[in-house]
Amino acid sequence: MSIEINPIGFVSANLKKIPRHWTVSDAEGILIIDEKYLEGLKDIKPGQRVVVIFQFHKSPPFTSEFLIQKPPHHNGKRGIFSICSPIRPNPIGMSVLEVLFIRANKVYVKGLDMLNGTPILDIKPYIEAEKNTN
Amino acid sequence: MSIEINPIGFVSANLKKIPRHWTVSDAEGILIIDEKYLEGLKDIKPGQRVVVIFQFHKSPPFTSEFLIQKPPHHNGKRGIFSICSPIRPNPIGMSVLEVLFIRANKVYVKGLDMLNGTPILDIKPYIEAEKNTN
Repeated sequence: MSIEINPIGFVSANLKKIPRHWTVSDAEGILIIDEKYLEGLKDIKPGQRVVVIFQFHKSPPFTSEFLIQKPPHHNGKRGIFSICSPIRPNPIGMSVLEVLFIRANKVYVKGLDMLNGTPILDIKPYIEAEKNTN
Repeated sequence: MSIEINPIGFVSANLKKIPRHWTVSDAEGILIIDEKYLEGLKDIKPGQRVVVIFQFHKSPPFTSEFLIQKPPHHNGKRGIFSICSPIRPNPIGMSVLEVLFIRANKVYVKGLDMLNGTPILDIKPYIEAEKNTN
């Protein structure tokens, strides 16, 4: 039943400190996408937001002790499916980033909360629930 | 470089027609989560929104002909990373669903746009960019 996923690219960023979450990040970096997907990037525009799905590639294996965790910025413990911890049953992250500009297969973004070298699994348009359009 | 992912559960829904997107869906169904993750669900509350990461398990393999696609509700073709097509380099979907209620390992949700039997990969809290909290 397992699913095989292959990165479409990697994050390039040289951050001294990784912001804990994209909602509180101004960090800039580059999504370097495999050139075979270049054509698929053509409609991404500066100023827009994109949803980036990525792998928490430095997380330890998940075990049941991580079902409840205390987030660093909260008092008290919470269930894993109510927090953004990188230690999850499947180490998949999601961030909403602002596109600064694009050069060929490089998407320059703001709002990073990922490590340098993070494998990127997908880029999607950011669509707000209220808008009812995509 | 490939990553192995294992579903944490499956969608149970009996929809006659699958809405094209969660932003335009009132469809109800159940996220049936593996009982080994039960404790991790404890802080999910009725009325809240959750981000559900899932597999497009019925999609054909991705090939370069799918880099540009015409969405059914748009004129013109767009790059894959600017649309929500289920035929993507990695067949990963993301929907924001409303939690109706929870019974043990079953999360009853509204806003479904997934097929019955869809493998669920992760559940995350829904956090709006402007709020700066999680």
